[in-house]
Parts: sequence; structure tokens; C-alpha cells
Amino acid sequence: MAKPESKKSGVVLGAGRSAAVEEQVNNGSLDLSPSGGAHDPATAAPTTKPKSGKQGSRENVSRRSTECEVFDDGTNTFFWRAHTVTVLFILTCALVYVTLLEETPHDTAYNTKRGIVASILVFLCFGVTQAKDGPFTRPHPAYWRFWMCVTVVYELFLIFILFQTVHDGRQFMKYIDPKLGVALPERDYGGNCLIYDPGNTTDPYHNIWDKLDGFVPAHFLGWYIKTLMIRDWWMCMIISVMFEFLEYSLEHQLPNFSECWWDHWIMDVLVCNGLGIYCGMKTLGWLSMKPYQWQGLWNIPTYKGKIKRIAFQFTPYSWVKFEWKPASNLRRWLAVCGIIFMFLLAELNTFYLKFVLWMPPEHYLVLMRLIFFVNVGGVAMREIYDFMDDPKFHKKLGQQAWLVAAITVTEFLIVVKYDPNTIMLPIPFFVTQCWILGIILILTWTLWRFFIRDITLRYKETRRRKQEGTGDWDRTLGNGSGTAATGRSKLNGTESVRHRKS
Amino acid sequence: MAKPESKKSGVVLGAGRSAAVEEQVNNGSLDLSPSGGAHDPATAAPTTKPKSGKQGSRENVSRRSTECEVFDDGTNTFFWRAHTVTVLFILTCALVYVTLLEETPHDTAYNTKRGIVASILVFLCFGVTQAKDGPFTRPHPAYWRFWMCVTVVYELFLIFILFQTVHDGRQFMKYIDPKLGVALPERDYGGNCLIYDPGNTTDPYHNIWDKLDGFVPAHFLGWYIKTLMIRDWWMCMIISVMFEFLEYSLEHQLPNFSECWWDHWIMDVLVCNGLGIYCGMKTLGWLSMKPYQWQGLWNIPTYKGKIKRIAFQFTPYSWVKFEWKPASNLRRWLAVCGIIFMFLLAELNTFYLKFVLWMPPEHYLVLMRLIFFVNVGGVAMREIYDFMDDPKFHKKLGQQAWLVAAITVTEFLIVVKYDPNTIMLPIPFFVTQCWILGIILILTWTLWRFFIRDITLRYKETRRRKQEGTGDWDRTLGNGSGTAATGRSKLNGTESVRHRKS
Repeated sequence: MAKPESKKSGVVLGAGRSAAVEEQVNNGSLDLSPSGGAHDPATAAPTTKPKSGKQGSRENVSRRSTECEVFDDGTNTFFWRAHTVTVLFILTCALVYVTLLEETPHDTAYNTKRGIVASILVFLCFGVTQAKDGPFTRPHPAYWRFWMCVTVVYELFLIFILFQTVHDGRQFMKYIDPKLGVALPERDYGGNCLIYDPGNTTDPYHNIWDKLDGFVPAHFLGWYIKTLMIRDWWMCMIISVMFEFLEYSLEHQLPNFSECWWDHWIMDVLVCNGLGIYCGMKTLGWLSMKPYQWQGLWNIPTYKGKIKRIAFQFTPYSWVKFEWKPASNLRRWLAVCGIIFMFLLAELNTFYLKFVLWMPPEHYLVLMRLIFFVNVGGVAMREIYDFMDDPKFHKKLGQQAWLVAAITVTEFLIVVKYDPNTIMLPIPFFVTQCWILGIILILTWTLWRFFIRDITLRYKETRRRKQEGTGDWDRTLGNGSGTAATGRSKLNGTESVRHRKS
Repeated sequence: MAKPESKKSGVVLGAGRSAAVEEQVNNGSLDLSPSGGAHDPATAAPTTKPKSGKQGSRENVSRRSTECEVFDDGTNTFFWRAHTVTVLFILTCALVYVTLLEETPHDTAYNTKRGIVASILVFLCFGVTQAKDGPFTRPHPAYWRFWMCVTVVYELFLIFILFQTVHDGRQFMKYIDPKLGVALPERDYGGNCLIYDPGNTTDPYHNIWDKLDGFVPAHFLGWYIKTLMIRDWWMCMIISVMFEFLEYSLEHQLPNFSECWWDHWIMDVLVCNGLGIYCGMKTLGWLSMKPYQWQGLWNIPTYKGKIKRIAFQFTPYSWVKFEWKPASNLRRWLAVCGIIFMFLLAELNTFYLKFVLWMPPEHYLVLMRLIFFVNVGGVAMREIYDFMDDPKFHKKLGQQAWLVAAITVTEFLIVVKYDPNTIMLPIPFFVTQCWILGIILILTWTLWRFFIRDITLRYKETRRRKQEGTGDWDRTLGNGSGTAATGRSKLNGTESVRHRKS
């Protein structure tokens, strides 16, 4: 159900911040009281009213409830600039040096590799200075532009792999690491699931200690970060539980999905994921409460304040609380289902992709892919939220979200193309039954919530009106004005209230 | 010298239009008089005051003199949207079809080629919907995003070529067209330069008719477009004449630079280029005078009006008159010299690149490169102008300008790397002398104009003041306040006048 919207006043800034930041160059002559830190809400008085940038007043109205207040003195120093001309000059110098002063070796394979790496580096140079900014600006917009470009390169790499034959694709990995392109040895999974193993006299709990490996902190950290991405307790828990169900359902395909029941539910869902989500939610609470006051480093008088300011550079510029409200209307419901589906698909891809491309689980490319998704997923999720939350304004699905969706699909297509046999292994009858039951339940709920319930409510409303005999057709109930308009009318309702207040 | 700035009132819009256009969705309820056409300045009354978008008021102040007035009723239809989700869906379907339903042939070379082409196509799909918008929006922002992506692909291709050995690079062209990668036959140029050839009795003017080939309209069209790019008569003429000098100077390296004297000066500079520049200037005059009134197609009542509106979709959204003002300060002077230098380098690259890569002059790749530059050069020039005109605001050199500069440099590096012998052929003594003389003249003028003259003027001013005995130090002469500040103080002067007026 839709949560009640909290009402906040003050200056609100959000998406498109980088553009707005860059606009505030000449705003910076503000009389900030010299108390130093960037934390005391009393010091940065409402005299600092930065321009709200491109988004303007509409943004203020439509995002007020989920966005934090931001105060920015608009300092725009050397640090913030994109240095387009400098980068171009350095790039030119590097090209002159490498191509004219170094001798080109007569090794076609080496040169081809070098040419491709050079192309990628030039693309990154271009992208880091010139690519479109996303929603995040901390610690520096260039950081997010860099990951944006990496996303493009990764997607193009996947597309290339997708168009090769299975054999060529696997052998192609040899160009990246000569140790790759070799079939993985079959591994033995499962085994003894006794928590207390009486057969082992020296340490009867050895099964538990065996499972307490590096994956425990990895799971914890992973879910901590995922919580920061999704910013919703319910969605995190659903994805966490669903993934264990998927592991159960797919252990006939990938043997390393088979775990003991207590490994699935106690160690994964409760301990690792649960703790990660809990800590993530605590951090989210802090992030949504913490004051967002950005002073230029040179405007801060004390050293302590300066150091604090530098540390806070690595926290977000502003904060948007995600209120997914999946039940508020059909569109949002489908979108949230789609997000959960894509999220789970991306998680499964991690395992299937390394399986079909013959990547050992401990290979650095696997780790790099995860680091990549950590950096990219948050931006994508925020862009999807923006797209869902205000489709009129954010008419475009954000670039990072677009690419992450394309990457997830491409990875899945690679899996299907490279190992159709594994994917097509018949699912056990019991598992099929469970899934069909689950899907039927979801469909029934969808049907009831967005079609039958609305019709019933509307019918009741009509009857009530007839009985009352009033002709006041304009004031319908929040949920009574049809399926698609439900959420919108709610929003309009709260908005008009807010307008009257201000 | 700085031209006097004309003062215009009214709503001014310019760079960053696309963003502003997309913002105007909900602006569209304007009461436009139903006279149909988009030409009558009286019809679209000043009731239509669109948001000036991201640029805001600063833009209005700083660009007022060179920008036209724009009226836009803010209609934002299906046509204008980026269709991010639609494109993503179609892309996914295409990938599913090609990779899962078609069988992959067992030909590694073919698959590699296909993989690269597919990667480029996916990149274009991404870029056309998601790349950063440039300054132009007509006929559609996606058109300019497309060329932006093509620029990236071309630059990466050049980088790749640059890192190959000379032999491999030339043979690599075979992958694009199997007919390439073959040494060009030596050609015989020059010859008989008599305008009236008494030796040929049937047609003594045959030398002239011989020169009247396809290059005449090509030169004309080329210079027409270049004039629209540069938007300044003087700069066009300088570049046109300079190029003929370059042809003279370099005919010992590339034999096809050697032409008869009347071919150089009469047919090229006067007839083809001159006529092209003349027509270009006429078009520029029309473009800077024509009213920029954009009504949504459905808001126009008459058929004639609709057809006119569709035709006008292919004219610019707004118009910025370029006032390069090279003599106003040292920074602008160096920038204009740099632009002319890069422009000439890009022109020379056309000839040298096809020479070193063994491309026959009539090959379609040569033509495609020219079409590419026509589409990309205009954007780049506008971005450079914006960067020069208001460096505070446009702190970033535009993406297209950045890439075109990188491409020009990379092309030149390819030429140097692939054929150092031709480039290093000793320049004839007479030519060297001329160039040294020219460079000395330019340096002297620079020194006089931006250093000596300023010091003299300041000295005279100081003496005058002393004689007058007034302490009014604030009101200095326009050119008297130092080298770098000259233009700025002028601008500030006119701005303050304008402020006082409004």
C-alpha cells in the first residue's frame, strides 16, 4: 500500500544535479556563518537558496516528498571542472609519443590487441570528460561518467561474444587471459548436511565451519550494497528469498546451487543477507536524515571542518528516499515485478555466465564484473525510480538503466546460446508445480487488486452517491476513478493540499 | 575590430535547446492566432514566452546580441520523444532473433566481422536514444545524436588504424572493401596551362573545358556548406586563399596539388569558392533575419501552413550569428588562428589520408568521409564558438568539437606515421622563405596589437589624465585596461548599458 507522504519544506534539489551544480558558479558569494562543519542545520541558514536548475519548479512540486533538502554554496573550483581541453591536449601528446616515437612491432596479433585497447582508452578519455551526466555527482561526476563508459564497452564486448560460435567465443577469452578457454573440472557439491555430525568425533560441527568461508562476508557486503541500491526493505527481502527459491529450482542445472537447507535459509537469508539488509536500512535511515550542506573547501575555516568536508565528498550529494509503492497502480506494480525479475536474472547470470564461458569462480574477471555491477546498479536503480516516479518529466529511461537492461538481456542470450542443453534440462515436476502455483497466485492478486477491486469500489461509490442524491461527480474516492488514474489522482490530491498550504 | 553590437529585445533561446524543448511539454496551451504560416512576426504575439531552460537569465544577458528571437508553442509530440524503451525492446527482439533463431556460421573471420558490425549497431542504437544532445535540434535531436555516435566510431577506427603497422593498416582496408589495399597507380598531373592553346585547332580553349569536371560543383557546394559552418565572410576568404597557398607549397609532395595558376586563383578562389561563399552569406543573411516561430503541426489550421511547417523542420531551430572578433583580445585571436589552422589541416588530411591509405579518389569511403564532416563540422564550429564566446558559462568544450579536434589530429598522425618520407620531402627554398615571412608578419602584428599598442594607449591615457588632473580612474578607455581584459571590459560596458536600459 502507498505509504503516507511526509511533507517537507525548503529548497529541494535532485536529479540533474550536475547541471545545476555547474550553473551555480556565480552564486557563490553567500554569507555563511563561520562555524565550520557541514552538519549543523542552523548554520547554513535559508539565505542560501541555490537555483533549482533545469528541473525548476515542477521538480520541487513533484519530488518534494521523497527528496531531502540540499544547501549548496555553489562553489565551483578547479576540482569540479571537466578539463575537456586539458584531456584533449594530454591525449594528443600521448598519441604522438606512442605512435610516432615508439617503433611499431611487426606482430599483427599484438598490434591488433594494442589497437583495440588504445581505442577503448580513447573512448574512456572522451567519455569521462564528455559523456552525459547521470543522477549522481559524488565524489565527482567524472567517476560516474567513467562507469557509464565502462558499461558501454562491456555491452559491446558481450555483443561481440554473442555473435561468435560457442567454440570461438570460449577461445576468445584467451586473448584476455591465456589461462582461460579451458573446460572447467566437474565439481562435487552437496554432501553431508548434518548440523551436528556424530560421526566426526574431533569436531561434530565441522559442517558449519566448512561453510563459513569467504562467501559469508561477500554475501553480507553484497546485500548491504543491494539494499543501498533498492532502498526498500520489502523488495530486498523478496529478492533475497526468491533467489533461494531459484537456487532450489535450478540445482539440477548448476550443481553449485545445491546447498543444505540450513545454508539456504539460516546462513544465507537470515544471517548474511538479513544482516546486510539490516545494516543497509540503518545506513539508509542515516542518509535520509543527515543534512546535505555543501560548502566549498576554502569557505570552511577550521581544519577539522575541512577534513570532514573531504570525507563527506564520498557521501551522496542529496538523497531520494525510494517509495516504490507497488500496489498504488497497475503500472507501478508491473514495473516493480519487472525490476525484481531483471534483478534476479542478473544474479543468475553471474553463475550461468561463468559456467558457459568456462570462467573459474575465483577468476579476477568474475570479481571485476561484480565491482562493475556495484557501481552501475545504483545509478540504474535510481534512473528507473526516476522514470517510474515521474514518467511525464523523465520521459527518457536513464542511460545507465537502459544499458544495464541491455546487458542483462545480452548476458542471458549468451547463456542460452552457449549452453542450451543445460538451460533446457527438464525441471523436476514438483518444482514446476510450485512455480505454476506462485504465478497463479500473483496473477490472481493482480487481477483482484487492479481490476475487480476497483470495479467493486466504483460500483459501491456509485450506489452511495445515488443514495445520497448529490450530483458532485468530481470528488471521487482516491481509488475510485479507474485503474490507471488511481495513483495519479492520489498524487494530485496530496499536491493540491500542498499547494493550498504553501 | 569588434563590430558594434546590435540590441534586440524579446525572448532569446539558444544553446542547450533540446533540453529546453523537452521541458516545454506542459507549456503548450497558448492562444496562437490561426493565420497558419510560421512567417508572420505579427501572428505569434509575445504572449508566447517559453521558458528559457537551463541557460536561464545569464544566457539572455550574454548572448542577446548574436542570437535570434525564438517563439515556440512548446508542442511536444510523439515525434520528439527519444523512445528509449521502444528502442530497447526492438533491440532485444532483434538480438533474440539473430542470435538464437539464426544459425551461426562456422567461419571465424565472418563472425568476427559480424560481431564488430553488431557492436557498432548496438552502440548507435544506444547513442541515438541516449547520447548527450548538442546545440542543434532540427530536423530532430536524434539526427545529431546519430552523427555524434558516428564521430566516436570513426575516431576509434582511426585510433585502431594508427596502432597498426603500415602494411597491416593498408591491408586492413580490405576488410571494408576487398578492392582496397592495393597501391595506387602513379598519375601524371600538371601539363599544358595555356588558356588559349593555338596548337589545338579544333578547340583552342580545350584546357579550360578539361578542368570543368565534377570538381567545380563539388567546390561550390563545399564552400557553400563551409560558409554556413563558419558564418563569417573574412574567415572563409582567408581559409580559401590560404588553401591555395598550401597547394602551391605542397605540390612537391602530392602531385595532384599542382594546378595551373588560373585554375588556382580564377576557377577555385574566385568562381567556385567565391560563388559558394557568396551564396552562403546570402543564406546566412536570410537565416539571421527569418522569424523563428515553431508551432506544433496540429496547431496549424491550414494545409499550406502544415506543409510549410514540415519544410521548415529542416531549417535551424534558432540562429546564432557568429561574431568571431579575432582582434578584440589575445585569447580570441589565438583561438581564431587555431581554428583556421585546424580547418586547413582537416582539408589537407582529405588528400593525404587517401594517399597514404591507398584510397582511389573516387572511392565511396572518401565521399562518406566528406558527408560525415559536413554533418559534424557545423556542430563542432558552433560548439567552439560557444566555448569561445562565453568561456565562463560553456566551461566545457563541446563533445563534437572535442572529437573533431581529436579526429583531425589522429588523421594527421596516421599520415605522418604511414608515409613520413612524403611529409619530410624538403620544401623548396622559395616556399620556405614565403612562409617564414608570413609567420613573421603575423607574429609582429600580434605583438603590436595585443602588447605594444595596449601599452602605448595606456601610457597616453595616463598622461592625459595627469594633464586633466581628474581622479576619475574608473572610466578607462575601451582598449586601455590591459591586454586580456580588453574585450571583457567592452562587453561589460555594453552589458551595463543594456542593464540600465531594461
